Amino acid sequence: MLSRNVFQCKPLVNRFTDWTLIHRHLAIWSSNSGGGHVLNGVAGQRHVFVGHTRSVANFYSTFKTRHKTSDDYNDSRQSDDNREFAKRFALKWGPVLAAIVGTTVATVAAKEEVNVEEFEEFGREIDGLKSYTAEEVAKHNDMSRRVWVSFRSGVYDITDFVAQHPGGDKILMASGGALEPFWTLFAVHKTREVFTIMEKYRIGNLDSKDRNAIKAGTDSTPDPYANDPIRHPILKARSQKPFNAEPPEELLVQKFITPKELFFVRNHLPVPEIDIENYTLEIEGFGLKAPKTLTLDEIKTKFPKHTVVSTIQCGGNRRAEMNKIKEVKGLSWGSAAISNAKWSGARLVDVLKYCDLDFDDKNIKHVQFDGLDFDVSSNPYGASVEALKALNPNADFLIAYEMNDEDIPADHGYPLRLIAPGVVGARNVKWLARIVLSDEESHSHWQRNDYKSFSPNIDWHNVDFNSAPAIQELPIQSAICEPREGQTVALDANRTIQLSGYAWSGGGRKVIRVDVTADEGVNWVTAELEQEDSPLNRTYSWTLWKANIPAPKEWKSGHKVELICRAADSHYNLQPENVRHLWNLRGVVNNSWHRVNVTIK
Amino acid sequence: MLSRNVFQCKPLVNRFTDWTLIHRHLAIWSSNSGGGHVLNGVAGQRHVFVGHTRSVANFYSTFKTRHKTSDDYNDSRQSDDNREFAKRFALKWGPVLAAIVGTTVATVAAKEEVNVEEFEEFGREIDGLKSYTAEEVAKHNDMSRRVWVSFRSGVYDITDFVAQHPGGDKILMASGGALEPFWTLFAVHKTREVFTIMEKYRIGNLDSKDRNAIKAGTDSTPDPYANDPIRHPILKARSQKPFNAEPPEELLVQKFITPKELFFVRNHLPVPEIDIENYTLEIEGFGLKAPKTLTLDEIKTKFPKHTVVSTIQCGGNRRAEMNKIKEVKGLSWGSAAISNAKWSGARLVDVLKYCDLDFDDKNIKHVQFDGLDFDVSSNPYGASVEALKALNPNADFLIAYEMNDEDIPADHGYPLRLIAPGVVGARNVKWLARIVLSDEESHSHWQRNDYKSFSPNIDWHNVDFNSAPAIQELPIQSAICEPREGQTVALDANRTIQLSGYAWSGGGRKVIRVDVTADEGVNWVTAELEQEDSPLNRTYSWTLWKANIPAPKEWKSGHKVELICRAADSHYNLQPENVRHLWNLRGVVNNSWHRVNVTIK
Repeated sequence: MLSRNVFQCKPLVNRFTDWTLIHRHLAIWSSNSGGGHVLNGVAGQRHVFVGHTRSVANFYSTFKTRHKTSDDYNDSRQSDDNREFAKRFALKWGPVLAAIVGTTVATVAAKEEVNVEEFEEFGREIDGLKSYTAEEVAKHNDMSRRVWVSFRSGVYDITDFVAQHPGGDKILMASGGALEPFWTLFAVHKTREVFTIMEKYRIGNLDSKDRNAIKAGTDSTPDPYANDPIRHPILKARSQKPFNAEPPEELLVQKFITPKELFFVRNHLPVPEIDIENYTLEIEGFGLKAPKTLTLDEIKTKFPKHTVVSTIQCGGNRRAEMNKIKEVKGLSWGSAAISNAKWSGARLVDVLKYCDLDFDDKNIKHVQFDGLDFDVSSNPYGASVEALKALNPNADFLIAYEMNDEDIPADHGYPLRLIAPGVVGARNVKWLARIVLSDEESHSHWQRNDYKSFSPNIDWHNVDFNSAPAIQELPIQSAICEPREGQTVALDANRTIQLSGYAWSGGGRKVIRVDVTADEGVNWVTAELEQEDSPLNRTYSWTLWKANIPAPKEWKSGHKVELICRAADSHYNLQPENVRHLWNLRGVVNNSWHRVNVTIK
Repeated sequence: MLSRNVFQCKPLVNRFTDWTLIHRHLAIWSSNSGGGHVLNGVAGQRHVFVGHTRSVANFYSTFKTRHKTSDDYNDSRQSDDNREFAKRFALKWGPVLAAIVGTTVATVAAKEEVNVEEFEEFGREIDGLKSYTAEEVAKHNDMSRRVWVSFRSGVYDITDFVAQHPGGDKILMASGGALEPFWTLFAVHKTREVFTIMEKYRIGNLDSKDRNAIKAGTDSTPDPYANDPIRHPILKARSQKPFNAEPPEELLVQKFITPKELFFVRNHLPVPEIDIENYTLEIEGFGLKAPKTLTLDEIKTKFPKHTVVSTIQCGGNRRAEMNKIKEVKGLSWGSAAISNAKWSGARLVDVLKYCDLDFDDKNIKHVQFDGLDFDVSSNPYGASVEALKALNPNADFLIAYEMNDEDIPADHGYPLRLIAPGVVGARNVKWLARIVLSDEESHSHWQRNDYKSFSPNIDWHNVDFNSAPAIQELPIQSAICEPREGQTVALDANRTIQLSGYAWSGGGRKVIRVDVTADEGVNWVTAELEQEDSPLNRTYSWTLWKANIPAPKEWKSGHKVELICRAADSHYNLQPENVRHLWNLRGVVNNSWHRVNVTIK
């Protein structure tokens, strides 16, 4: 089921499925079944679906029939299926600690993002170490059998490292196999630090025949990011693969509606290529008599077109400030991982009504959304939101097909994107392919083991991701976009400094006030706001603001000033003051007072 | 219409209407009309309805018929009626600057709450000043004719004072008349500061005959608070009339459900006496074919009984901390103007469905609630909430008739109280008598000119109450209840300090974490939480918490420590740090880090 979408994005699948060929070379796969190929691994219960001909519906029905009768189908069981299947499926890839290679580290701060070839000193054959075949490595694919991985000519037992990093199915994703395919996908993690950690766990050499087979596979595997769209050079990239970038702050606040070229990009995986002719949206789970499949044309024509101006902010916006306190894991975002667009599409509740959803089905507690972007295990990017919010008759959730009155650009979810207004960007699932009415949250790594915040007293040695809820509605936020950090600023004719920026709060809460200060809050100046004429609790668009701070006499040329802004929302939430008290190991939800240090000209 | 409820609470009305007798003595009233007595003032358009016999329904229909035909009745117009009527009605009382005497100052910090007789030096006859009759004073009842009031033998022109305090119809409530009746109601305002301000505006002496008539009225007027219920002596009163009190913090957190005796009391006016036999709830406004009247029995029997554990917090909780920064207006609450109870009753949406409300009527933007507690102008205490929230099918708003499985106590709203879960106490209207589906907010003083917060740069000289929204859902809050400020604390056997307290957030947001620190956030300890097993965004009950902070070696006997707590809610809102940045002229929504200073034993 997880790989259903494989059939919809052939070029991407081709890139990934080359890796199954590598494993075939390694002779650890065999057999097939049905219209799709089910490969049963010799060394474990390895299953992978590959194939390009079967329809999605056929695939689904085959899969379900094989595992259960249709009348006992429900999302809970299906999720169990997912888990079991994912577990078995993951084994295909053999493993690597995701904390080293995979999605857990998909956002590790990339101080050195380089070609893996640059670290030739790692993974070399070491004289005197025992030699293992790929088949032997593959037997060590879970904690009970110890977790081995290979990299180049090295074999590593990373069991003890895994044990130190509890939480997250993904952590075992690469167990029993070669690291190279993961690093192809998550280029961002190829850092000297990671390699150095790896070498501590070295136990042997990989058999040279297997090493050569893997290398041949690696060399012949196309870059999964090769078909990512071309981006505007104005964007400041925080990582290339996957692509993540923010616009210059000073341009961001020039327009109330962010132009598509400037809209920040947050991709977790390669941008999928879409077979638009065969694109469908699947809807399934509790409260439905049967799963539904809607075409893009149906989404566009069967429902009233609804428009919401909604700001999207990454949970990691302003992470760079946290890194100054103590390094955190994640892309080092400045303050522009946020943008505002006009989104149009069908209302989620309208679509679900059309599907005859029983909104009163008490089993429906979460609505899960899957995209068409896949990780190396063919797990799609996924997220979920509470049904209480998404299915509320007044909810403004959209299945959007337009951004700023045009088709949504490839980087932002073409052809369909979930717009979950007021909710963190990570739940605004792009390239939307599947909606599941469920009794539980998405099992996606990004839902359960990422995008959560903790107290500053929690670090990687004592974190329990189950102890915190997934970030959903974001707290009140604001930032000064002009002047910028480090600028030399001229006073205007009235001896004031002009500031401008944005403010926004999640959950539909409107910004009611922005205050600025140049003396750490001894005196505050209230800003002028540019905002929508929208209800206090149904405002999803940001507020732009301008303020002038009068310069005291003692501000001579060369005087250094810290400018601060903070905002309040309609629930009278105010931003907290100091980033150090918000510090968390993932560097998320930094909504501390925004501070910009400038010098008076 | 405003005085409709007059007919329902006879003893209270008797106490107030004695004041109309005073005015009769002053010969400025005449005539009556209909079943109720409409007194047309000689000196202005004075109208007051008094009477004890007519039914509410009759009264309504008479009033409406007189003013408009029933088919053009709608809430917007009715509100216009209210305003016009209130304006004319208010004139009856003649005036005093509410900022001196009335509801605007109903919450002025009462450092010296004493009998008015204690300030005999004020309001004395002053030789050489011109003498005015009450009739002459009464002519000066609006800004265009200047605003005069009398107090004892003094006549005052407070026009310039009014001009400095824009905002609020109530400010002119006492214009053209004697102050004494207002001070009877708002005893809390009889302070030396108020009298001193008054005397600056002295312009003359009141004619001795009129002075004696007013004094006779004052002396013979029963205390409107005489029938307030007896309270448990454990409550710490912040004002007696109206009664406002909080429990000791250390008792507050002993029980998850606050016993009724300990539940904090926030009254704006005298507790009304209820004629339970004739008690009805009126429902009117947009979306209804006709106004509806429901009896208490109907409310209790026609609808499923729904229970919500909901914390109620006063908007002014923890105001005392703001006073330490700079004095604010309002009762000097500690940190226990918050309590948690189990409320049962009919769901508001169920009741409105029963009334055949058209929930889709686009005119319905606010739902207004009036209580049976009246000010001297016979305006009921009133509040409103956004329809978006109150009429949401998932809304947990209750028309409650039970608190902790018993009839609601008199101080907490017997027989019916609106429970607006997650919303500031001021909107949880007690002694509920009337619900209006409206296109605008309640015109109540407490909705429009109170319970709002501003930046610290706003004070009484530059405040515009229209510039801020009414406080509704409250932000994340927490407090340390044990140990208490100033205590000497013994370390336990493990050399830790034990802390306990509460945490809560508005809008149904669940508390997800409480952190405590004894070193201003260098080290945090995460507390253990006691809370309901309820959804992240539908939790209305508070969380109780306990934490142990380990004592560093340098904590010897006599060492002084500042203990701090702060909480996070499900939207990852965190409390801001310093109260000085939250300071606002009304001292509301103080949710800064709670700090308790103790000495190590």
